[in-house]
Amino acid sequence: MSTTTSAGTSAGASADRLARVALNAAAEPGDMVFTGLVDELGAAELVRTLTENPDHSDLLSAVAGRLARVDPAGVLERADAAGYRFLTPEDDEWPAGLADLGAAGAVNERGGVPIGLWARGPRRLDELAAGLAVVGARSATSYGDRVAGDLAAVVGQAGFPVVSGAAYGIDHAAHRGALAAGAPTLAVLACGVDRCYPLAHRPLLEHLAAEHLVISEAPPGAAPHRVRFLARNRLIAALSRGTVVVEAAVRSGALNTLNWAQRMHRVTMGVPGPVTQATSEGVHHQIRTGGATLVTGGQDVLELIGAAGSHLLEEPRAEPAARDRLRVRQRQVLDAVPVARPATAGSIALVAGLAVTEVYRTLRHLQEHGFVEHTRGGWRLATNAP
Amino acid sequence: MSTTTSAGTSAGASADRLARVALNAAAEPGDMVFTGLVDELGAAELVRTLTENPDHSDLLSAVAGRLARVDPAGVLERADAAGYRFLTPEDDEWPAGLADLGAAGAVNERGGVPIGLWARGPRRLDELAAGLAVVGARSATSYGDRVAGDLAAVVGQAGFPVVSGAAYGIDHAAHRGALAAGAPTLAVLACGVDRCYPLAHRPLLEHLAAEHLVISEAPPGAAPHRVRFLARNRLIAALSRGTVVVEAAVRSGALNTLNWAQRMHRVTMGVPGPVTQATSEGVHHQIRTGGATLVTGGQDVLELIGAAGSHLLEEPRAEPAARDRLRVRQRQVLDAVPVARPATAGSIALVAGLAVTEVYRTLRHLQEHGFVEHTRGGWRLATNAP
Repeated sequence: MSTTTSAGTSAGASADRLARVALNAAAEPGDMVFTGLVDELGAAELVRTLTENPDHSDLLSAVAGRLARVDPAGVLERADAAGYRFLTPEDDEWPAGLADLGAAGAVNERGGVPIGLWARGPRRLDELAAGLAVVGARSATSYGDRVAGDLAAVVGQAGFPVVSGAAYGIDHAAHRGALAAGAPTLAVLACGVDRCYPLAHRPLLEHLAAEHLVISEAPPGAAPHRVRFLARNRLIAALSRGTVVVEAAVRSGALNTLNWAQRMHRVTMGVPGPVTQATSEGVHHQIRTGGATLVTGGQDVLELIGAAGSHLLEEPRAEPAARDRLRVRQRQVLDAVPVARPATAGSIALVAGLAVTEVYRTLRHLQEHGFVEHTRGGWRLATNAP
Repeated sequence: MSTTTSAGTSAGASADRLARVALNAAAEPGDMVFTGLVDELGAAELVRTLTENPDHSDLLSAVAGRLARVDPAGVLERADAAGYRFLTPEDDEWPAGLADLGAAGAVNERGGVPIGLWARGPRRLDELAAGLAVVGARSATSYGDRVAGDLAAVVGQAGFPVVSGAAYGIDHAAHRGALAAGAPTLAVLACGVDRCYPLAHRPLLEHLAAEHLVISEAPPGAAPHRVRFLARNRLIAALSRGTVVVEAAVRSGALNTLNWAQRMHRVTMGVPGPVTQATSEGVHHQIRTGGATLVTGGQDVLELIGAAGSHLLEEPRAEPAARDRLRVRQRQVLDAVPVARPATAGSIALVAGLAVTEVYRTLRHLQEHGFVEHTRGGWRLATNAP
């Protein structure tokens, strides 16, 4: 491979950036071997090692072979002309949250911090990367579409970007909801940012590329292969503060995204649906086993992903000065209740000079209001009495 | 009141039983003042105190007045003739689980172990009191009816009795499902066991009274007042090992039953539904806040209420002897990984005499299978390696 810089935008590209462009072109998105080796050796050193060392397995040989044919400066130049940019950790808009992928392990040998990301659109990635990921079934029901759209709109209106793929069903409903609320939205693709998949979503993707942002770990021109969706899912989880699943059958790819969010200790949420429909089975399983918190809409989501306390649904109530409002008889009983060693109602009645039945009833009232507590031995003042 | 025993079934009645019959007739079901005083003083002593002591509040005076007019022996005699029996802690069929109400506090001044229970039907209460409570909206949707019925049938078929009220909606669907599965079922009423409320459920209640069991804390003849439903709910929770809510709006009485189940550390469960319908709002709130575990049907319920391990959905799998299945190269790398102080892939490659890229890829494989772990300092053998 050539590391010579040529004219145009790649003129100022660092050795690290050029090495990342080359590796991005030669290796599969999210291949743990390469994301891990870049982390361990650095991109430039890895390129050098692969190019010079002949003792490779089949995979490494294949990538080394492709590396030799990549002209990274040329790639950058053509991308610039087409309006795409290549982001690396060097860039200001590289989101800090992507670093969490370094410790999140691998699924099907996909994982790690991306070597680089291709971006298309006017918005900065770091500004879009603190929102809500909305994922779910491609074959969503009208119920799922409606819930995902409404939820994205509420969260978007509160100022959070929405992150999703660009698939049929929930992905599409989420972007549509965010756009309707005038909220920024980010599409993370499994194919190149120059491709429209599915083709029916060309209008959506063109709009996002013109006004918002479309990104991909796969280089321009890459086709949407199955394994690339798995690699892509980890980015959706990493590029948001929480992931909500709306409709997902038991083997849905959306659960793979949720799993990545769990690995990175992001907020994980699920919207329930009728238990009679397979479309929500995967979501219910996650909620049931503690993998996701049940949310019923945007307000619930905001409470979980918002800044602490800023979206709480209920205000905590101030306690009144309860003791001041007790009646004379009630105070009389309260004064007869021992602090530490519990006494029976009969013994308290003797001290208070009242009938045991009356005293008992008052004790129950005092207990309900937190003044006294009932233990096996009898009654005593509550530890945290008002 | 008279404590003289008369002829007939009440001939052998103990002083405690007669006192309980009298208190049951004179006080409201579940009135915490009286359940608590019976617990504290004993029933006979409470009757004596109320009868002899003139220093009463309005409530106590009213009950003392009614007590004076009750003939408990006569009450027992008439009940026996009508086919109802009065259960107290003296009876073999008194369920041990009712004792948990003693420490479960009060809601709206209702709570405590019932002073006695009226029963109508051939089955023993203690044998019906280890099942599943199914509760929910009276105004259930057809979705809720179907889910509750199916769930009760599956749980009933597995040998668990079903406990519920006798209201429209979920109560009715639960009994119907249990009966269809040939399972025993228990109805806990807010009115007297001789009354049919709602009237439309006369056929159901007559059938349960003939073949199963109908119980109430209210004496025969008592009308179904609102406050009696609140007292009744605690019995449904106490008479089952778990409560599942199917459809409940935010202020549903079914949530009151769930709350009692929580207080007694019973298993609490909820079936989700569409978030677009108010009928499931209360259930979703409980699941969301940890008040209930999400269940999607009878199998989920059995897993939670069944004897430990007897209804687990998945068998735990035995781990294969993984190390034996490693290839030569993989063992070569594994042998070069330090036990304690982590080493970089480069350093391990030097020890193993292999290319760093090859070693790295193998390390990732070994990591995925639990042999090695990756820490900040590099690679080392996993603590719990196979």
